[in-house]
Amino acid sequence: MSTSNNRVAIIGAGTIGLSFAALHLTKNPRSNVSIFDTRPNLEQYIESKLPGYLVDVDQADCLSRLRIVQDLAEAVKDASIVQEQGPENADFKRSIWPKIEQHAPEAALFWSSTSGIVASEQSKDMQDKSRLVVVHPYNPPHIMPLLEVVPSSVTSQEVVDRTLEYWRGLGRVPVVIRKECTGFVANRLAFALLREACSLVAQGVVSVEDLDSVVQASMGPRWTVAGPFKSYHAGGGEGGLESFMQKIGGTVQECWDASDNDVKQGGIEVGRTWQDDVFRQTEKAYGVIDTAERDRKTKAVLQAVSK
Amino acid sequence: MSTSNNRVAIIGAGTIGLSFAALHLTKNPRSNVSIFDTRPNLEQYIESKLPGYLVDVDQADCLSRLRIVQDLAEAVKDASIVQEQGPENADFKRSIWPKIEQHAPEAALFWSSTSGIVASEQSKDMQDKSRLVVVHPYNPPHIMPLLEVVPSSVTSQEVVDRTLEYWRGLGRVPVVIRKECTGFVANRLAFALLREACSLVAQGVVSVEDLDSVVQASMGPRWTVAGPFKSYHAGGGEGGLESFMQKIGGTVQECWDASDNDVKQGGIEVGRTWQDDVFRQTEKAYGVIDTAERDRKTKAVLQAVSK
Repeated sequence: MSTSNNRVAIIGAGTIGLSFAALHLTKNPRSNVSIFDTRPNLEQYIESKLPGYLVDVDQADCLSRLRIVQDLAEAVKDASIVQEQGPENADFKRSIWPKIEQHAPEAALFWSSTSGIVASEQSKDMQDKSRLVVVHPYNPPHIMPLLEVVPSSVTSQEVVDRTLEYWRGLGRVPVVIRKECTGFVANRLAFALLREACSLVAQGVVSVEDLDSVVQASMGPRWTVAGPFKSYHAGGGEGGLESFMQKIGGTVQECWDASDNDVKQGGIEVGRTWQDDVFRQTEKAYGVIDTAERDRKTKAVLQAVSK
Repeated sequence: MSTSNNRVAIIGAGTIGLSFAALHLTKNPRSNVSIFDTRPNLEQYIESKLPGYLVDVDQADCLSRLRIVQDLAEAVKDASIVQEQGPENADFKRSIWPKIEQHAPEAALFWSSTSGIVASEQSKDMQDKSRLVVVHPYNPPHIMPLLEVVPSSVTSQEVVDRTLEYWRGLGRVPVVIRKECTGFVANRLAFALLREACSLVAQGVVSVEDLDSVVQASMGPRWTVAGPFKSYHAGGGEGGLESFMQKIGGTVQECWDASDNDVKQGGIEVGRTWQDDVFRQTEKAYGVIDTAERDRKTKAVLQAVSK
C-alpha cells in the first residue's frame, strides 16, 4: 500500500465513525486518524466509547495515533482519506463536501458512509465531483469485511482503484456497485429476505425465534462459505446453476408467486399492524442483545471460513 | 434418547438418502440403518458412493451397521424410523405410505424428506394419517443442521415430539413449521433473496461473483451468528427491532418498493431471457464446484459459532 493513504480524517463520531476509526487504527498500523465532530465533550465521549472497539489490540499504540479535532479544516488539512458519516441528510452532505474540498490536500480520497444518499447527489456543489465515492459499510465495519464502493457516473476510475487498493490492503472485501441504485446491494438483498421473514411470521407459519433458527442453521453458514449463486451452482451438480433451475425452477417460481400473494394479502408494508406482533415476539425472545458476544462469534466464523 | 429410535429405514438412495444414512450412522452410534431402493446394482452403487459421506469417522464401524435391501417390506419391518426420499411425485408418495404402514412396526415414525409435497397430501390413502410428518433437510443433511419439521393438521403431537427429540439428540436443529405452506420456510427465504439477487444482476448493478462476495462478507457470517430478526433487534440498540424500524423503516420500504418495481420491469420470472446472462456469468466464475471443500469449510464455520 502506498504510504500516502495513512492519514485518515473521520468526519462524524457516531457508532459508525468510531468503528471505522478503530478499523483504520487496528488494521493499518501506520495510520494516523483524526476524528472531527461537533458534539460537546467530544474528547470525553471518544475516550469512553472508543476502547470498546479496540479489542485484542495494543490500545495505547492505537490511541497514540489518534487526534480529536473540533475544527473541520484542521481535521482534513493533512488527510490522505476523508471519510464522512454525518447525518443521513442530503443538504448536510451536499454542504460539507465543498468545505472539505477547500481544506483537504488535492490527492485526498473522499468517502461517504451513507446508506442511501448517492455520490451524484452529494457532490452537486463540489468543484471536482470526480473525487467523491460512497463507501458503505455493513455494520459494524471494524468487524464485518464488506464495503460497498458506489461511484457516481463521474467518479474517477483512479479514485475507485485507490479505494479498492486501500481496503484490500487491510484484508477487507470492497465490492464495486456499478449503478447508483436504491439501497445498494447488501441492504436490498437483506431486506428482500426480511420482508419474506415478516410475511411468514405474520401468517403464523413460524415464530420469530424459530425463523432465526432456520436461517442460523442453513443459509447463514452456507452463504458464509458460498454466496447464493455459487451455492445453487453447486446444487445443480455438473450442469451448474442452469441445471439447478431446470430441475427446481418450477418450485422457485411457485415460491415467488406465493410470496407476492402473501405479501399483498398480509399488507406487509412498513408501519402496518403486522409489525406489532413481530416486535413483541422479538423483544420477548431476545431482550437486550450482547453485541460483544455477537462480534466475538462473528470474528470466529470469519476466521474459520478464511482458513 | 430412547433406544427404540435406533433402527432407521432409508427409502430412496439418491444423494439425500445417502446423506441421511451417513448422518444417522455417524451421529447416532447405536443406529442400524437399512437402505431400500429399486435401482439396479444397488449394493455396488452404495459401496462406491456412501464412503464419500463418511468423512472423519470410523467407516468400517458405520458400514457394519448398514444393510442394503431390495424389498420394501424387508427394509421397514423392524424400523423405528422410516425416512422417505423417493421421487418428488405426489402419486408415488401417496402410494408408498400405505405399503410402508402395512409392514412397519406400529410405533415407527414416518418421515418424508419432500421439499414441497405436504404430509396432508401424501397421507391421503394411509390408514392412520396422524403418523406422517415432513422432515425437510437443507442439503446436504449430513452437514447442514436444519431440519424443517412440517406436520399436517392431523399429525399427532407425539409424532412431532419424538421427531424433535431424535434430532436434538443428534445435535441437529429441527424447527417446527406451523402451517403447510408453499416451499416451507428456508426455501421461501432463500428464494426471496435469490430473486432480488437475479434482479440486481439482470439490471447490471453488480456481477454474479461480486454479489456472492457481498453476501459472503456480510449477511452470511452475520446470519450464522444471529438470524435476521435478532440481527436487526441488535441493530436497534436498546429500543430493539421497533426502534430499528422507526429509524430505518423508510429506507426498508423504499427498498421493497424498488424491488417490486425492478422485478416487474425486468421480468424476473423463471425461464425468461434474463437467466441466460446469469447462467453464463456463474459458469464463467465458478466452473465445477468442489463440494468437499465447501463441506469442510461449512463444518469449520458451524464449529466456530457453536463455541
